[in-house]
Formats: sequence, C-alpha cells, structure tokens
Amino acid sequence: MRDHIRPGGWWTLQAGPGNAITDVAGVKVGQVTLDRGPVQTGFSAVLPHGGDLFAQPVPAGVCVLNGFGKSAGLMQLAELGQIETPILLTNTFSVAAGTEALIRRAIADNPQIGRSLPTVNPLVLECNDGRVNDIQAMALRPDHALAAIGRADGGPVRQGTVGAGRGMVSFGLSGGIGTASRLCGGWVLGALVLSNFGQPGELRVMGRRLQAARPEAEKGSIIMLLATDAPLDSRQLSRLARRSAAGLGRLGSHLGHGSGDIAVAFSTALPTADANGLLTCQRLAEPDLDPLFLATAEAVEEAVLNALWHAEPVPRREGPATVLRDMLAWG
Amino acid sequence: MRDHIRPGGWWTLQAGPGNAITDVAGVKVGQVTLDRGPVQTGFSAVLPHGGDLFAQPVPAGVCVLNGFGKSAGLMQLAELGQIETPILLTNTFSVAAGTEALIRRAIADNPQIGRSLPTVNPLVLECNDGRVNDIQAMALRPDHALAAIGRADGGPVRQGTVGAGRGMVSFGLSGGIGTASRLCGGWVLGALVLSNFGQPGELRVMGRRLQAARPEAEKGSIIMLLATDAPLDSRQLSRLARRSAAGLGRLGSHLGHGSGDIAVAFSTALPTADANGLLTCQRLAEPDLDPLFLATAEAVEEAVLNALWHAEPVPRREGPATVLRDMLAWG
Amino acid sequence: MRDHIRPGGWWTLQAGPGNAITDVAGVKVGQVTLDRGPVQTGFSAVLPHGGDLFAQPVPAGVCVLNGFGKSAGLMQLAELGQIETPILLTNTFSVAAGTEALIRRAIADNPQIGRSLPTVNPLVLECNDGRVNDIQAMALRPDHALAAIGRADGGPVRQGTVGAGRGMVSFGLSGGIGTASRLCGGWVLGALVLSNFGQPGELRVMGRRLQAARPEAEKGSIIMLLATDAPLDSRQLSRLARRSAAGLGRLGSHLGHGSGDIAVAFSTALPTADANGLLTCQRLAEPDLDPLFLATAEAVEEAVLNALWHAEPVPRREGPATVLRDMLAWG
Amino acid sequence: MRDHIRPGGWWTLQAGPGNAITDVAGVKVGQVTLDRGPVQTGFSAVLPHGGDLFAQPVPAGVCVLNGFGKSAGLMQLAELGQIETPILLTNTFSVAAGTEALIRRAIADNPQIGRSLPTVNPLVLECNDGRVNDIQAMALRPDHALAAIGRADGGPVRQGTVGAGRGMVSFGLSGGIGTASRLCGGWVLGALVLSNFGQPGELRVMGRRLQAARPEAEKGSIIMLLATDAPLDSRQLSRLARRSAAGLGRLGSHLGHGSGDIAVAFSTALPTADANGLLTCQRLAEPDLDPLFLATAEAVEEAVLNALWHAEPVPRREGPATVLRDMLAWG
Repeated sequence: MRDHIRPGGWWTLQAGPGNAITDVAGVKVGQVTLDRGPVQTGFSAVLPHGGDLFAQPVPAGVCVLNGFGKSAGLMQLAELGQIETPILLTNTFSVAAGTEALIRRAIADNPQIGRSLPTVNPLVLECNDGRVNDIQAMALRPDHALAAIGRADGGPVRQGTVGAGRGMVSFGLSGGIGTASRLCGGWVLGALVLSNFGQPGELRVMGRRLQAARPEAEKGSIIMLLATDAPLDSRQLSRLARRSAAGLGRLGSHLGHGSGDIAVAFSTALPTADANGLLTCQRLAEPDLDPLFLATAEAVEEAVLNALWHAEPVPRREGPATVLRDMLAWG
Repeated sequence: MRDHIRPGGWWTLQAGPGNAITDVAGVKVGQVTLDRGPVQTGFSAVLPHGGDLFAQPVPAGVCVLNGFGKSAGLMQLAELGQIETPILLTNTFSVAAGTEALIRRAIADNPQIGRSLPTVNPLVLECNDGRVNDIQAMALRPDHALAAIGRADGGPVRQGTVGAGRGMVSFGLSGGIGTASRLCGGWVLGALVLSNFGQPGELRVMGRRLQAARPEAEKGSIIMLLATDAPLDSRQLSRLARRSAAGLGRLGSHLGHGSGDIAVAFSTALPTADANGLLTCQRLAEPDLDPLFLATAEAVEEAVLNALWHAEPVPRREGPATVLRDMLAWG
Repeated sequence: MRDHIRPGGWWTLQAGPGNAITDVAGVKVGQVTLDRGPVQTGFSAVLPHGGDLFAQPVPAGVCVLNGFGKSAGLMQLAELGQIETPILLTNTFSVAAGTEALIRRAIADNPQIGRSLPTVNPLVLECNDGRVNDIQAMALRPDHALAAIGRADGGPVRQGTVGAGRGMVSFGLSGGIGTASRLCGGWVLGALVLSNFGQPGELRVMGRRLQAARPEAEKGSIIMLLATDAPLDSRQLSRLARRSAAGLGRLGSHLGHGSGDIAVAFSTALPTADANGLLTCQRLAEPDLDPLFLATAEAVEEAVLNALWHAEPVPRREGPATVLRDMLAWG
Repeated sequence: MRDHIRPGGWWTLQAGPGNAITDVAGVKVGQVTLDRGPVQTGFSAVLPHGGDLFAQPVPAGVCVLNGFGKSAGLMQLAELGQIETPILLTNTFSVAAGTEALIRRAIADNPQIGRSLPTVNPLVLECNDGRVNDIQAMALRPDHALAAIGRADGGPVRQGTVGAGRGMVSFGLSGGIGTASRLCGGWVLGALVLSNFGQPGELRVMGRRLQAARPEAEKGSIIMLLATDAPLDSRQLSRLARRSAAGLGRLGSHLGHGSGDIAVAFSTALPTADANGLLTCQRLAEPDLDPLFLATAEAVEEAVLNALWHAEPVPRREGPATVLRDMLAWG
C-alpha cells in the first residue's frame, strides 16, 4: 500500500521537504495520546518557536468560519494580533486542563505573570471527540498537556488518530491530525489540522466524490493551524486564515451548522525592538499574499486528506470505525 | 448542444422548478445591458418583493469573504439586519449611479425620506468589468438602474453576459450572471451570482479540473445573492451567507487577494407588527439551518457554472474571449 | 453616612425597585468569596432564569470593546446568539475552574451532553485581581463556582468587594461588583458589573472629576452584564451591549489598552417552539431600542459607582487600599 | 466673548500648536460650503498627505460604533488596512457625488486605474443634514468635492457650520466641523469631527450638564477622523479608532439608535519598500498605545465642543437654530 495519497499533478504548488508544518523553520510539534478503553483522546501541541513565547510572541491572525466551538484565547489573539503560548489542540471538555497547563508553564518561566506582569493568554483549540472518546470522563489533565509540549520537536509529524486526533471522525471516517506544506515565492507555508468535520458522502478526494459508508448528521469541527516564515502582520495573517475556507470547500464540505471551523495563522518572522521599544517589522506587499493564499487552500485540503489517510480505525462508542484507505480500495 | 450543464447525480438536493432565484416566491429580477462598442456593461436588479421595500424591509445578513471591493450599503445592512431598497449589481465605477437611482426612487415613493423620515440605505454591489468594458467611461447613469428595476419580473432569469454580467470574466472565461435554486425541508433557496472571479486553470467543473486557456492573475470578484422563503433572522442569514465560501471552494477558487467576494442573504418571510409596533417573527431552530447551508453551497456552485455556461464571448479590451462551452468541447 | 450615592436629578430614567439586575424577573445572583490572607477572590454567578439553561437558552449578544482578556464562551455566544449556562464572573486564572464546573453541572442535568447531545458552551468572564489577590495560587476550584450558583436568588445583590469582586481595583480605588437598573417603556434593564478598570484621576462621579490618590497605570478590565425582559433578538442585544461604552465614557475612562472591556446582554423573553420546532419570537421595532440604549448607559455608569461606593478597603498586595467613600469625604 | 471654550485644568494632555488635525505634519483640510436658501450643505476634505494617495496609501483602521449610516469605502479600508484617496465628509445623499469625484481624480493621476491597475476605493463619510438642508435637492456635485480638495492646506481649520458641517445639528444645537489635537510621547494626535449627533439635554460640557432648549429625538450621527504621526499598523489604528467611544461618552451621549457613529484613524508614518517590494515598517509596542488612546478620548471630546462653540445659528427647515454660546451664556 502506498504511504501517501499524493497524486501527480493535482496540486499546483510544490510541497516542502517534509510536507509538514515543521517545514517552517523553528516550528515544533509534540503529542500525547490516551488509549485506555473508553478513553481515546489526547493533546497535540504546536510551538511557533522553541523560546519563551510570552517574552517573544509571534504575529498571528484568526478566522472563525463557524463559531460553534469552545476554543480559548481567540479574543485576545484577535485584539493584540499575537500568540504568546504554545498552541494546544484537544477535546472540547479538556480546554480547561490545557488552559491551566499553559498558565502554570508561563508562570514557571515568568514568575511575575499576574503580578507586575500582565496575565497570559492560553491558546487551546478543540473539537468534540465524543463519538469515540468518553469525553465526560475528562481524563486529560494539565500534566498531559505539559508532556505534549515537552515532546515537541521539528521532525516528522505523526498523523491520523494520534494526540488530540485520537477520537476524531471526519466525513464519517476516522479523522485526526494531518499536516502538509507548500513552497511559494521563497517562503514556506505549513498547515496542521485537527479534522473532525464533514458529513459522510460529501468528501471529494481530489475532485472525486466518495460514497458514504453510512449516512450521519455532521457533529464535528475542524481546527486549522497555518504557519509561515513569510513576514506578515496580524491583519494579513487573518486574511490568510480566511483562505482555509477554500480548502474545506474543495474537500466538499458545506461548512455545516454543527461544525466549529476555526483557522489560526502565525508568522515566525518576528519584529525587532529598538532601545525605546519601537518595533521594526517587515511585511509582504498585499498582492504578494496571493501565492500564500493558494498555498493555504492546497495545504489545508491535503492536510485533511493526510489525516484521513493515516487514521487507524479507532472504534466508535457505538460501533466500528471506517478508514479512508478502505474506502479508496472499494472505489 | 445541451442547454445546461447540469449532470445527473452530482448534486444532492433537487433544484426548484426554474432553477433560479425567482423560484423564491415574490423575488423579481430585471436587467439592462449596454452593448455599444467599448461600453459593455449593465445593471442587474434583484427585488426581494414587489412592494415598497423602505416601508417593508426584508431581514438580511451579509458575509464579506474578502473586503477588497466597493459595494455600498453593507454596513447598515449588517447593523440593522435588513434590506430596504432593491439590490443593484453593476460595475465598480457605477455604484454612485446606482446609489443615486435608489435614493431618487425611494424618495418618489416616500417623500419624507431625509425629512421627517430617516434617509435610505441603497444597496449596490459591484465587480470590476474593466477587462471587457471601458469602465472609465462611466456610461451607466441612474436611469439605467431604474430601467433594470422597472423590468423586473419573477420569470426565468437571463444568464451569462447580460446586465451587470456583460463585461465579467471568471476563471479566464466570459462570466456574468448565473442563478440556481434548491429545495429543502419545504423551503426554497435561490442564488444569483455576478461572477467575475477565479484564476484560469483553477476551475473545477463538478470535480473535474479544466485546463487554462491562458495564464492570468486574478483581478475579479464575485457577488452572491441568496434568497429564501425560510423564516430566518439576520444572524442566521449571515451564517447562511458565509456558506457561500463552500461553493467557491468546490469550484476550485482559492479566494484570491484581488477578488472582493461578498455574499448577501435575505428572507422573504416578514415579521408582523402589532398596534404597539412590537414585531412577531418566526425563525428556524438552529440545527434546521443545516440543509439550507448545503443548499447554499450547491446553489452557489451551480449558479457560477450556469453563468459561465450561458456566457457569450464578449471580446476583451485586449483580445478575444473564451467561453466555457468551448472549453468543455475541447476536454 | 448615606447608604448610596444616588443624587437627585443626575440621571434621566427611574431605577427599578431594587436598583439591581434582579429587578429583571427571573434573574438570580449568587456569590462565593474567598478571604484567606493572600487569597482574596471569588465567584459571582448570574442566572438568566432558574431553569435548565441548556434546554432553554436565552437570546444574547456581546460587545468586545477591548479584547485584551481571557473570558470563555463568547465566540459561540456570538455565533448562535444565546447563553446556555449560568454566567460566571471570576479572576483571570480561574476561568478553567469555572468552565469545568459549568460542564459538570450541565452534564448532571443533561447526561447525554457530549454523547447524543452536543457539548455545552460554558460562559465564564474574568478580570485580573492580581493587585489584591494571590492569583497564582489558583485557589478557586469548581466547587466554589457550583456553590455560588447554588446560592443564587432574586433578592438584593451584595455589592463591592464580594464574590468575583473581592480583589478588584477601579480608578485606583477598591472596586468589585456593582449593579443598577432602569425602567423604560414598560421594560426593565438591569446591569451588573465586575469593575476592575479605570486609571486613578480619571473618575468622574456624576460629572465631577475626582483627584487621584496616587498615579498608577491601568491594569484592569471591566465585565458588564446586561439583562432585560424586553423581547430583543441577538443582533439587537449586541447593539445594546455596545452602549456600555457610553457608560464607561461618562465615568471618564479612556478605554485603556490594558483593560479588557466586555459587555454581554441577554433577554429573558424566550421564543416558543411549535410541534415542528419552528420558533416564534417577538422583538422590539428598532427605534424602540433607543430608550433601552439610554438605560444601558445610565445603568452601567451607576453600577460602577455602586461597586466603588460599597467596596471595603481590601488591602492590596503592595499596600493599603483606598475606597471611594473616603475620597468623596475629602472632596 | 472668548474665542474658545478651553478651560484650564479640564484635560490631561497638552494640545498641539494649532489644536487641530493639521498639527499632524502633512495633513491638509479644505472645505466648500453651499449657502443658497434651502441648500445649506457642503464638502469637507481631509488629505492624509499631499501626494498621490493611490500610489502611496496610508495605514488606516476603522471603528463602526453604530453602522446606521451610508458611508462609502469602509469595507475595503478594513480589509486592506489603508486609505488610498482623500477623505471626503458630506451629507448622506451626496456620497455618490463624492465617490464620483474621487474616482475621476484618481484616474486623472493614474490613467490605468480600472485597466492595468485595480480600481480605486473612494472614502466618503456622511451625516444627514436634512434638519437644516434640503437634502433631497442633491445640490452637491462632483466638482464641489474637487474644489474642497483643491483648497486643502495645512493651516488653521475653519470650524462649526462650514463645509460638510453646514447643516449639522448636535445635542439640539448647531453642530458641524470641529477639530482638536493632543501631544503625547513625542507624537501628535489630531481629531476632526463632523458632529451631527446627541440628544438635547444630554450634553455634558466638561462634566457640566446643559439643559435642553427643546426636547427632540436623536436623528444625527458623528464622523470622527483621527490622524497621528505615530507609527501604527492597521490593527492598532482600529484600536485607536475604538477609543472615540470614550470621547462620545464623556460628552454625555448614549450612542443613540439613530446615530451612525463611525471613526476612521490613519497614520502618516509610511512603510518603505525594497527592490523586491518587501515593506519595512515601524510600529509602537502595544502598551505605548495607551497615551494615544487617552489623546483620542480627549481630542474627540474637545473637537465636538469646538464644533458647537464655533457654529453659527444656521436656521433649521422648521424653525430657528440655537448655538452653544447662547446656552453657556444662559447657564
């Protein structure tokens, strides 16, 4: 069996060397998976850089395609245009555990947080894995989040039903974590998704419609993280994040009511501060965003397919699971 | 040659009897086309109902996918959640002419506008037809807009390079006005688009990628009007409008930088007022929006294809035009 | 000493019988205060009605005047236009504890949440009480939140340095919980604030500028809850929430960078559902909102003054506290 | 009689040398007034710099406090974060005339607009002067707008019932154009308002409530332009614009339903482009915005008072006008 589904000629832009968000220099990913009977869940952590993010935040933007979700930290991200903690992905009822972990970690690095320093804005994004995981058990605790962060590295990213992706379902199939990257204009654009969205029967694999294994109402969501080394400001990164919708549309999604679809984009190109605290930054001229917009649409499309391709058939609470690889074999 | 491109089995939902926005009872469409040498442009008018819209506005919502555009009236539409004039589509430099027409018409019907009554909010949406039309000529005047409104009826809608669609280019092909409708849950959802967006080579016709006639940077935009008889409030109509992104994604668009992509949705189900002015309205429960979201994705996708299918090869200022029918014949 | 600061003639509208958010029929407030040496914090809970909010949510809107804050639940509130849990106010680092409490409580009432039912959206709003409280101790646990909810009733509201207000500082003075109400057009509008905002020297008490006890940079925030029995939809409630800015301006605030200023408004007038799930609701005609906008400006202005008037001088981590009553005596 | 109402000690920050938006180096203002019997209206033009704004746009942000208005150009301003034409202020029904003027002027300077260059985004902001002016006459034509632009200079700004301010009414008094500036941290912040908002009886002149000459429902609006030489990006300028609400609140406004309150902010600190088109820009660190936020609140408050102070009693369509100077004399 092939180890990927990447066809010749479907996409326009070239993937980076790892076809992963870690192709963006400095970005690290770490994951913790809980696989204990009814508990099938986890944390996936994405670090925009390996340093102290509270001291050196990264420029960021957000697009809320569908706000039916419980992610934490997006309001301040939009206001200040930056990310100041690692990004955690997890299940809906573990946002609190992730939040607490990020606060404790930031205080450990900056003991004056909440005293002479402002408080910290934890960024924790979620999907509901209740179709597979006993989400009411709230089995994830802050230490699991810290472990995911601790394991983060810049190498290949495990995909499919791992980390936060463990209990995800997408288009009626096992979903989870997927990643992809694109090269354009000397820059790298990487995407990492937590794919839990899509109604059975809607999926278009590179244009080809798959038949549904079984009909089912949409209950999921998708979180899309976009990283780039291109120098973009917060407004531009929000525009970039909005192009994730094109990726979802290409996959056949209709952006269902129950699917909290959220994209967060950040740049690893940081401003520099002079002695007076004045910041100097670079940014692309606006028309030069266009190739990155295309890269976003393609990377999101492929990251979702990669999530499905790598997913194992983690059983659902009410029956067995189906995986994309079996569907393609049927086709 | 077939008179439509609608294949069996591609879409999930059934089209209405006319497969047009006029399938929504009460909605009327009228168009005026200028075809005078270098002047190739026009107005297309959509009337949510045939009465006095200032006296009886319709609930409405908006989604600005890409705000790179010059449409008028969207700010107040978002604030008050209603449309109070006919909707005009036209070229970018004729928004002022359309605005003036709508003001004059509203005053004629309500002579106290701007005196004892508030002012009126003209809704004029635009795309840049400068690749075909001599847009600098500003040949459209308020009377052309009034003529388009005067011609409006609830019958079949002329599609392709007519009205505001005269000079439109989409995916490198002649574009313009397209429409489609879907039936779901006893309701009708109609879409009418002014299609001027899409890079050559990106178009997916029901999943199949078309080759580009010639490479070209995206310079266009798309306006998407959505009408329904389902009782929805303004917030729900904004959610509906946002699903237009799924339609664009299915067509292969990456929501390019230069494309001002805007969707406006309205409902023909009006509130009733009691003697004290208290309004009574109905609305769908939120989960019941989902079929309408799917209808939106499908109707937008098909309306664009219909625009391209019906377009005539109106020559471009710098050379001949290509139409979709010829491309499909080549394929 | 007077038991209130309400002057004759300053405000235009009449207060309700209790001059409190509980003047809105059905609204309940409960609070838990921790007063243990360095731990000076708490939870304040506001219940829009006494029933199961997940089963019967209330229409709601939000205004983020300054998104420099970590409140939970606002994204979904904005998307779906409703509140489906009690509203918790607390310190910045206890949002997670509040979130967990609301999830557990909702599951207890609706055991299928996260299984056959969707997940629940906890609404927890916060200010940073780190100038008074040892916020890093994270002393508040989910049980404290549940206790605050359990104590909620519709009677008089304790104000000042109680509940979540325990460690708040406003205009350099002890701040905290304040409430007020207004009657207009047969409706009641109630406000409850968690006041932690305002620079010393900026405060205008009914137009009169107070001198600062000591200069200090703004580090606080303000949460403003607005309740009404007027039938308003989500869009209208968001408009109402925006008028909270007028109240802050009247108090002399300049909406400082560091102040996460957020208003949430809800209506206790609920829609009714027919057998098919179609909702029937009432709403005010738009011009009839204007008296409620004035009521909002006045009630927010007075609620902040009431918070300061009732505050006890809870010592700050780095010195003693000043209270408004002493300032007015000096004047 | 004094030539200004500026008291000692009320405001915190120092005004610039002219106490006008033209204290920001490079900013120019020009006005045209029509005073012909029932026609009492005009254009006021603000030029962020004296060069070609299409070729060298300025960074900009916007805050829509109340979207009940018909201003043109704000959607693209928000999307691209820039202003690319002079800013025109005028009456509600002359937005079209202003739009046409700005398009023609931009084409004259850049003949490829709408051809090989994109179209241009005219920025025209409005208030309804129908209480004084025969707004239905639409007496302003594009040439009047061009004349206002042509007269623009960097000197003192005529205030009160001039230019677009000719027919404005504010708090029941003659309103119009007002300006003010503040110095802070080495930067200049200037405000220019078109003041048509405020209910009689609400006005607080430096804390003191004025009695209403006669009761009247709010029908007006206010446009607030903010200019600074501080280097701010679009997101920061939007935050700055939002602080205009504090100025309105200090004046006693309750942000009435009928008042379309809009603030636009721009910076004259421009990015530089390298040979590859990469832009280098500076921006203030976020906490350094706070003094500029205070400057905004103060400058908006004073600019409105200045408009009222300088206004002549231009008669209303239905009776005589009252001016602030007479009210203060009465008090």
